[in-house]
Amino acid sequence: MSDQAAQARPKTVTACVLTIGDEILSGRTRDANLAYIATHLNRIGIQVREARVIPDVEEVIVATLNEVRARYDYVFTTGGIGPTHDDITADAVAKAFGVGIGYHPEALKILGEHYERTGAEFNTSRKRMARLPDGASMIDNPVSKAPGFQIGNVFVMAGVPMVMQVMMDSLTDRLEGGAQMQSRTVTGQIGEGTIAEKLGELQARHPDVGIGSYPYYVGKTFGTSIVMRGVDSSELDIVAGEVMALMREFGVEPVAGGAA
Amino acid sequence: MSDQAAQARPKTVTACVLTIGDEILSGRTRDANLAYIATHLNRIGIQVREARVIPDVEEVIVATLNEVRARYDYVFTTGGIGPTHDDITADAVAKAFGVGIGYHPEALKILGEHYERTGAEFNTSRKRMARLPDGASMIDNPVSKAPGFQIGNVFVMAGVPMVMQVMMDSLTDRLEGGAQMQSRTVTGQIGEGTIAEKLGELQARHPDVGIGSYPYYVGKTFGTSIVMRGVDSSELDIVAGEVMALMREFGVEPVAGGAA
Repeated sequence: MSDQAAQARPKTVTACVLTIGDEILSGRTRDANLAYIATHLNRIGIQVREARVIPDVEEVIVATLNEVRARYDYVFTTGGIGPTHDDITADAVAKAFGVGIGYHPEALKILGEHYERTGAEFNTSRKRMARLPDGASMIDNPVSKAPGFQIGNVFVMAGVPMVMQVMMDSLTDRLEGGAQMQSRTVTGQIGEGTIAEKLGELQARHPDVGIGSYPYYVGKTFGTSIVMRGVDSSELDIVAGEVMALMREFGVEPVAGGAA
Repeated sequence: MSDQAAQARPKTVTACVLTIGDEILSGRTRDANLAYIATHLNRIGIQVREARVIPDVEEVIVATLNEVRARYDYVFTTGGIGPTHDDITADAVAKAFGVGIGYHPEALKILGEHYERTGAEFNTSRKRMARLPDGASMIDNPVSKAPGFQIGNVFVMAGVPMVMQVMMDSLTDRLEGGAQMQSRTVTGQIGEGTIAEKLGELQARHPDVGIGSYPYYVGKTFGTSIVMRGVDSSELDIVAGEVMALMREFGVEPVAGGAA
């Protein structure tokens, strides 16, 4: 590739998702946020390269956050920004950035008005949700009002999926996407071991396309979905066509698109 | 606590779950394995302290595995042990341990008999699934035959949930559990901000019990589940009783057990 071509090609933008919460690690709650965040970021050209689930323990949050915010372009956290004693994410993020933490005037105003409307007491615990690290900017929460926040390349969001989703959706303007990953899926009722060798050869001929093979079992039938991901949609179409031809070679009629 | 008491108390045994697979990071597939593994390990006294999702990239698998197998008592991986080019977990694990990899005679026999029965060709790709790091011991797979394996404190399992679950269930005898975490849940239709301050005081009085507060929204109703976790069931009962009394103090009738 010439230097010019290298310049023309959009850069790769990476992200890490940090899920903060004992309830995910204990198995009590099944995480529903990673798939949403990854899908959303994919659409705007940001690739999730790693995800971690960590407990509500300050030194773990601080160390992990400092490691991943240096390694990836963006970090998205969920969980730990409510009013109770186990909600320590904001304090841990402030500590990781080496900044202070205090009441954010706008957050305090929004929450104050919210509790005046609902009639619930705006007590010290609820005021905790207006505490943001110095220099952080709010992420609006139209659902339950308590804001998330952004500091540097770190976006701190709620753990409740309904709230996390509106926060995530509101961030598009603040994020700079890069090369947009496209994908094609070809599915057939064929064992992945049958086409594995030729699929490996196809992968070797198209190193810029990531070819994944995912077997599925539904009742007594089984099959394989081949997923191709890459930034060049013409090349993806060519590879998808080759995968369809490959399945037909073994007497199986492929279906373009997902199954299982 | 006296030295004697410290000796009598069962030790804490920790684990890390490593999910290997591009399809989880792209958002295509929603992970179903962490909650199952965590719940299963909890029952035998092993606490999952961290979980990571990483891509099918050899150097990432090697570096991550070497980091977490040094830090935790056990590591459980899922994904990447099938017959296709993107199934690189066994090779990466061998590399992480600095050992060779080759056909495991028993695995080869089991797979050979399986494909003779099904009539599918036992080709080079399918034989890949019988390659285990030197010194590894098999984890049986009664569902689709291709084995997982154990090497040192690392347990390598399939990504397909149905297969992973039978592998996990078969491991109980190989794992040494420690202090068994118990839990109690108290739920009430009350905002967590209402009880947050007193809940924090309760937490301060019972540092050995982890008290988590989880708000939920179901349609127009909302409420909070308080989850208490610890190894001393008498203390858990006392704390659960205090949480119920606390909710009643605010005019809300609590329910013992989970909701949302």
